[in-house]
Amino acid sequence: MGRIHNFNAGPAALPLPVLERVQRELLDFNGTGMSIMEHSHRGKAYESVHNEAIALLRETLGFGDSHEVLLLQGGASLQFAMIPMNFLPAGGSADYVLTGSWSKKAFSEAKRIGKARVAASTEQSGSFTRIPQADELEIDPTAAYAHITTNNTIFGTQFHYVPNVGSVPLVADMSSDFLWAPFDVSRFAFIYAGAQKNIGPSGLVVVLVEKNLLAAARTDVPNILSYRVHAENNSLYNTINTFAVYVMREVLLHMKETGGLAAMEKHNRQKGDLLYGAIDEDSDFFRCPVERDSRSFMNVVFRLPSEELEQRFVGEATAAGLAGLKGHRSVGGIRASIYNAVPLESVNALVDFMRAFRKRS
Amino acid sequence: MGRIHNFNAGPAALPLPVLERVQRELLDFNGTGMSIMEHSHRGKAYESVHNEAIALLRETLGFGDSHEVLLLQGGASLQFAMIPMNFLPAGGSADYVLTGSWSKKAFSEAKRIGKARVAASTEQSGSFTRIPQADELEIDPTAAYAHITTNNTIFGTQFHYVPNVGSVPLVADMSSDFLWAPFDVSRFAFIYAGAQKNIGPSGLVVVLVEKNLLAAARTDVPNILSYRVHAENNSLYNTINTFAVYVMREVLLHMKETGGLAAMEKHNRQKGDLLYGAIDEDSDFFRCPVERDSRSFMNVVFRLPSEELEQRFVGEATAAGLAGLKGHRSVGGIRASIYNAVPLESVNALVDFMRAFRKRS
Repeated sequence: MGRIHNFNAGPAALPLPVLERVQRELLDFNGTGMSIMEHSHRGKAYESVHNEAIALLRETLGFGDSHEVLLLQGGASLQFAMIPMNFLPAGGSADYVLTGSWSKKAFSEAKRIGKARVAASTEQSGSFTRIPQADELEIDPTAAYAHITTNNTIFGTQFHYVPNVGSVPLVADMSSDFLWAPFDVSRFAFIYAGAQKNIGPSGLVVVLVEKNLLAAARTDVPNILSYRVHAENNSLYNTINTFAVYVMREVLLHMKETGGLAAMEKHNRQKGDLLYGAIDEDSDFFRCPVERDSRSFMNVVFRLPSEELEQRFVGEATAAGLAGLKGHRSVGGIRASIYNAVPLESVNALVDFMRAFRKRS
Repeated sequence: MGRIHNFNAGPAALPLPVLERVQRELLDFNGTGMSIMEHSHRGKAYESVHNEAIALLRETLGFGDSHEVLLLQGGASLQFAMIPMNFLPAGGSADYVLTGSWSKKAFSEAKRIGKARVAASTEQSGSFTRIPQADELEIDPTAAYAHITTNNTIFGTQFHYVPNVGSVPLVADMSSDFLWAPFDVSRFAFIYAGAQKNIGPSGLVVVLVEKNLLAAARTDVPNILSYRVHAENNSLYNTINTFAVYVMREVLLHMKETGGLAAMEKHNRQKGDLLYGAIDEDSDFFRCPVERDSRSFMNVVFRLPSEELEQRFVGEATAAGLAGLKGHRSVGGIRASIYNAVPLESVNALVDFMRAFRKRS
């Protein structure tokens, strides 16, 4: 069949031109006579892909020598453990802002390793319908770091400001909105993002870490879990997920060719505005549970008048070639993930479907 | 250009029919209208790939309910840390058999986490030219586990027997010879193997763990580093490297279609015998530093009379379409990795090249 509209929450849609290029050179990368998957991670062909991916990240975000770029495995979930293992000193404490399931997981993993406290939480009866206001954050000025989750895939919320945490290092899980729009890297001491939403396939996590923070990291962790070891080895301490780095490089090249982050933000805002517009224009039928200021431009969640209607909606949408619209199993409802690679035409198709569904219901 | 002869040590050659199939369905997996990379790890399409990969592993090796199969990230290097974190109790000690750089790394990482001792070592002046004899292993009967590396990529040695370690759980790093030939899984309490040599692309590690061992594992480790957590979630605790699992499934299917492990062993022995034969037939010129009983069927290392000749050999071989023959930077010389997916014709081409090079040198 032809390609369908993909609203998966992650792993998620990849740009079609990227997939086409990967397909073209799958048996013979760059005239080398072998697949990129068959190249040594220590050979010249892969090495140039690796270094170009890192250079493109720097160029795309426009940051300089202040931060190291690391390309790691294990997803954001391994970062939940590595961050406190590396940056939480004995006797120290870390602050966590709870805005959804993923920040709770990060907090819970930190508590298995050291002392962590809640600096803010917007949980109400098991749900999170908003991002805290800046003045709600009670940051411990002696905290080893303060951790936020910039976008919450399950609850459809997104930080639209960078918290001011004073001199406390700000750590951000950007897995689901990394590179959705330009941002100032220098405001963050540590950024991490699983690749499988906006920048590549699963099995790769991108880390930007301030050199100052790195220099102060603990040394009593296993080598493979030490950011410093990975930084000293340009992320080639062990065999990396070479294929995922290669695909990410293609995604970054494609982004550059299509206008970079500024164009990406415009594209994403257009999609989000269109979809939220369709929800709001018929608020008797479609209801977005998220407070307006906290709405995510990556994961748009909404409810229908009944669960039975929601089931029908998802079923009929799937049959119409609109995939991945079922809300997360923990909250139900509808969720349309409209990451970078989801084209405007997919959102148009969804909005058309919503209006038609509304009419016949 | 056409595909070349690939003797890379890992990431390494993949079976051409597998790559062709991956290429064919890259934009549309199984008529679903999206790439396998774009599928949710919690969706039906990926789930069936995942479960089939695990079932094929069980079928290929012929083991039953005694062992769990886990599909993880982070390579063998993360296993070096996770094994002691999970299986080395406070106050306990683990035994390590040192047969090369990788077992030394595993040992060194264990010592960062708990108490580990050397049960045997064949290191002589920084080199390892043999596997210890069975009676050289001094296993501590109270050890939490005994760790071996079944094949040593850098030094070109391979265990050709399974050590008898009594009631001590036997842990084996099989990264570079997993599925090279049939073996009895029940002799091992824990097996791990990075996929990037014999079974797939990098970024995936396969673990077989005895349920008894799992039940006794420590509970005070971060969730993401706990084998028990991964087992309880069928390796879907977090987002897995879905693409690598998909490629591994294709590799296992291809292996099944071409005669399974018995045929694979025959194929590998044929290649190894051919190459070692070419070395031995001209032992004034080619010299294999490895003792005969310890020779690896996966990584064939040999020396030429001088380093200058070795450099020329690698350079001319590369120009002739024979890639990846340079020995590991730590030891020099020549290394031909002839993993499962390297066809007999590649070894024939190498042997022809060796004879011609010898003649003109």
